[in-house]
Amino acid sequence: MSNERTEIGSLGEFGLIEHLTKNIEIQNASTILGVGDDAAVIDHFGKQTVISTDLLIEGVHFDLSYTPLKHLGYKSVVVNLSDIYAMNAIPTQITLSLGISNRFSVESLDEFYEGVYAACEKYDVDLIGGDTTSSQKGFIISVTAIGEVAPDKFVKRSTAQKGDLLCVSGFLGSAYVGLLFLEREKKIFMESPGVQPDLEGETFVIGKLLKPEARKDVVEFFAKQEVMPTAMMDISDGLSSEALHICKQSNLGCVIYEEKLPVADEMKKAAYKFEIDPTACALSGGEDYELLFTIPQSEYDKLVLNEDISVVGYMTEPEAGSHIITKGGSKYPLTAQGWNHLK
Amino acid sequence: MSNERTEIGSLGEFGLIEHLTKNIEIQNASTILGVGDDAAVIDHFGKQTVISTDLLIEGVHFDLSYTPLKHLGYKSVVVNLSDIYAMNAIPTQITLSLGISNRFSVESLDEFYEGVYAACEKYDVDLIGGDTTSSQKGFIISVTAIGEVAPDKFVKRSTAQKGDLLCVSGFLGSAYVGLLFLEREKKIFMESPGVQPDLEGETFVIGKLLKPEARKDVVEFFAKQEVMPTAMMDISDGLSSEALHICKQSNLGCVIYEEKLPVADEMKKAAYKFEIDPTACALSGGEDYELLFTIPQSEYDKLVLNEDISVVGYMTEPEAGSHIITKGGSKYPLTAQGWNHLK
Repeated sequence: MSNERTEIGSLGEFGLIEHLTKNIEIQNASTILGVGDDAAVIDHFGKQTVISTDLLIEGVHFDLSYTPLKHLGYKSVVVNLSDIYAMNAIPTQITLSLGISNRFSVESLDEFYEGVYAACEKYDVDLIGGDTTSSQKGFIISVTAIGEVAPDKFVKRSTAQKGDLLCVSGFLGSAYVGLLFLEREKKIFMESPGVQPDLEGETFVIGKLLKPEARKDVVEFFAKQEVMPTAMMDISDGLSSEALHICKQSNLGCVIYEEKLPVADEMKKAAYKFEIDPTACALSGGEDYELLFTIPQSEYDKLVLNEDISVVGYMTEPEAGSHIITKGGSKYPLTAQGWNHLK
Repeated sequence: MSNERTEIGSLGEFGLIEHLTKNIEIQNASTILGVGDDAAVIDHFGKQTVISTDLLIEGVHFDLSYTPLKHLGYKSVVVNLSDIYAMNAIPTQITLSLGISNRFSVESLDEFYEGVYAACEKYDVDLIGGDTTSSQKGFIISVTAIGEVAPDKFVKRSTAQKGDLLCVSGFLGSAYVGLLFLEREKKIFMESPGVQPDLEGETFVIGKLLKPEARKDVVEFFAKQEVMPTAMMDISDGLSSEALHICKQSNLGCVIYEEKLPVADEMKKAAYKFEIDPTACALSGGEDYELLFTIPQSEYDKLVLNEDISVVGYMTEPEAGSHIITKGGSKYPLTAQGWNHLK
């Protein structure tokens, strides 16, 4: 962090917006008009427009005592892009609104925007608008992500079919274990402010929490292989909770196999340090931003080409309910908080 | 307000969202997919998409001690739609995100949403998505408005031409005087809680503050008369400030005539009760949500057909600066806070 401190009030509202947005270079042909007017203008030229929005509030969604502002800016964008990919669409623009208390300096906002612009660059999206206002308390972030999809090629949650394979991208549960580490170190620091954090060797799980990525590559893989998932959503609240959403909205049940859950070795080791079951983390840990989707069994041959995709189960008739089969062969009902057995 | 109180926690996040959105009926053919998935889907069928977003924070943008929640819901939508009209576009959808502290009951949110849906119905827009989350303190509202416009028929702030007429819709300054009344009564109430508010006869100015309308009719008038403004924006921060935006972004100056400022009789009387100049209110009072626009002088004949539109001045070369000519014939520089003379 820079040592300089410029008060936000010294620039004024319009000066601040100009300062924060002056280096924007529009990347997308679909961005007709960006920041600086009453509204932005987009033309998706025959494609459909996909829109998602999130509100992130300090003390509820993030803790600035261990979240670098640059990472927070990056993550604020990425978690919204993840919703666009979850529709099988490609993000093209974002708007960003901030509520800022006077404890923030211009330099700290610059750090936040550095992360925002890094995410925009990595995912080829344009920042096209927003609102910057003061807040009496805490930092408030509202991001709206906009994307495009060929007409009616978007994928909903409600269209999974009985017998479809249930699949996830990447590894599950890592971000949750990263959060446990940061919360532990925060507690130690609050009790003994002189103690340096001991995060040695935990960069993988902490990185997954602080700097998640959205699965652009998976949506691109679908397009290349001409795979069309029957249903899809992103995993922000944990696999169990999200699988139950697909079941409910598609009016189906499902079976998930514990042994098929994709769990990183780093996460496993870290979970054992906290004496918790990696399976519980994989089922109930949030903020992984992986994709959960269903595909017909006939598409299995295409899926195996991508080693970042795991088949974790399949969809059943609704009467069968939703269950997990453990490595030992036991069967437990799936619950939104994970798996009762593990509570 | 209903006397019942249902705790938000009793419904849970998903139950709450379902409760608040269960009666939505999609009005627009452009809404392909609404609330209930990772993102909403829109198809403007060849038109361009216009997007604007606002963040409203309790204690900064509104005061719940004198703002009924239903009015707040209505206003939160309308002020965003106003930005879409200010682009010469027609709003079609909104997303709404809320941060809610636990002092809110389900019934109070129902009141807020009653206002939201009333605005959606009046302006023919669909609520297609959002985010509902807890807030540690205060009520937080983020609205994104989406609209459509024929390709390249949107109107920016930066394209006014020298010699164009500078015009406004409706009356100016009313909302500001309404605010003065409510703030005065709040102060009296804080000092003597038994005293009933004395807002007798001030329903006009208070109504303009608490339940503003967006100028859909003006944009429809332009379409019908085939008038295309050269520049346009909505007046949220006062005429002076907004006129200076058009001047700066169009690289022009302007002249405004005090005698041409549209001021309602109710506002004038109310301003005199506070011993302030109605002209100062018209120039610097915010939250009127009227439209400010420029048109070529050749279009004047069409404008006079609409008695809700006033020509208040004209655009000059930038070297001439931006001025107001008083009724007495004096000339003062226009400033963002109004008119120095009045400070």
